[in-house]
Amino acid sequence: MSRVTVRRHPERGHYDRETIDAILDEAIVAHVGFVHDGQPFVIPMAFVRVGDDLFLHGSAGSRLLRTLRDGAPVAVTVTLLDGLVLARSVFNSSMNYRSVVVLGSATEIADLEAKREAMRRYTERLMPGRWDEVRTPTDKELKTTTVLALPLDEASAKVRTGPPIDEPEDADAPVWAGVLPLRLGAGDPEPDDGVPPGTPLPRTIASRDA
Amino acid sequence: MSRVTVRRHPERGHYDRETIDAILDEAIVAHVGFVHDGQPFVIPMAFVRVGDDLFLHGSAGSRLLRTLRDGAPVAVTVTLLDGLVLARSVFNSSMNYRSVVVLGSATEIADLEAKREAMRRYTERLMPGRWDEVRTPTDKELKTTTVLALPLDEASAKVRTGPPIDEPEDADAPVWAGVLPLRLGAGDPEPDDGVPPGTPLPRTIASRDA
Repeated sequence: MSRVTVRRHPERGHYDRETIDAILDEAIVAHVGFVHDGQPFVIPMAFVRVGDDLFLHGSAGSRLLRTLRDGAPVAVTVTLLDGLVLARSVFNSSMNYRSVVVLGSATEIADLEAKREAMRRYTERLMPGRWDEVRTPTDKELKTTTVLALPLDEASAKVRTGPPIDEPEDADAPVWAGVLPLRLGAGDPEPDDGVPPGTPLPRTIASRDA
Repeated sequence: MSRVTVRRHPERGHYDRETIDAILDEAIVAHVGFVHDGQPFVIPMAFVRVGDDLFLHGSAGSRLLRTLRDGAPVAVTVTLLDGLVLARSVFNSSMNYRSVVVLGSATEIADLEAKREAMRRYTERLMPGRWDEVRTPTDKELKTTTVLALPLDEASAKVRTGPPIDEPEDADAPVWAGVLPLRLGAGDPEPDDGVPPGTPLPRTIASRDA
């Protein structure tokens, strides 16, 4: 049994890259765990998957990134909450979710052009079209950014879908049971002061389906 | 400087319980970090704040909960993603978010009635009204559930709100800039097979504003 084998509810475990990648490519925030003086820390971070790696980036001054670039063990967990599962008992009530856990050690991407490309991939994943709409990073900006790559060698997904699973003795309870789907959706765009009148919405927003 | 002092963007740090509690009381999933053989692990978990404690629960067989109930150091991080911040440069593009980090050690709630009350508080927070609609936990079910309490003694919040902060030289760029708000919303309820026709929606769903 590996370190990423799903032990609780093993039937929810998935180890194929197709399942893992789909979750990673939908989620916006990762929770990154590291250890400092024996204490775990968990920090939310932006990320992007590129091929067989997760790229994390942030300020070069960040304690998290300084710890990780030295090869410290890291855990990256990504969770998509898909719904509340209302069973006919409290005990069997649950949530539908898709999560991925990645363990390993990161390496720093030092080359400026490789960092620029990582930032392009990150930007285009999160805000499609934005790279061509706005000023791209200067060398100076890239130098103040640390970019780390974490290989997807040790990763698993855990997925719960579908209706509640009730005890047979609860099946006839005269109560509503089922799933309330949850989804991250977008609201009305809020233009910044100073946006010239008539400026078209960026493609990120105009093409968004939510 | 404490272990939970916000170091990057210190102006985003908040240490008052009002701010911390509001974030904890809105979020549904926490990311719980622990250390096993020097390796950090980060697991998504349901939780509820009750007064000055976070309550975590799960199967008594879970490695995470078995590790934590022995007093191992833990990190609990909760993140609400509020929006994409589209600046006039890639470098200043960002996200609006509210997050809380709690560090400490948990203690197990062993008393059955205290566990029942913790499950009631959890259920009523996540699914208001549900405790009175469905079968509540039996003693046997409670015995297979581990409930842990983590005090909020060492906690901080980090919050980014508002529009992009651009460089002066980018201010006149002829491009849309601003915020795309993001929010977790509910879809159409999906009733389980076997729900009697005409069964009213649970209060959890009927009263939900999303």
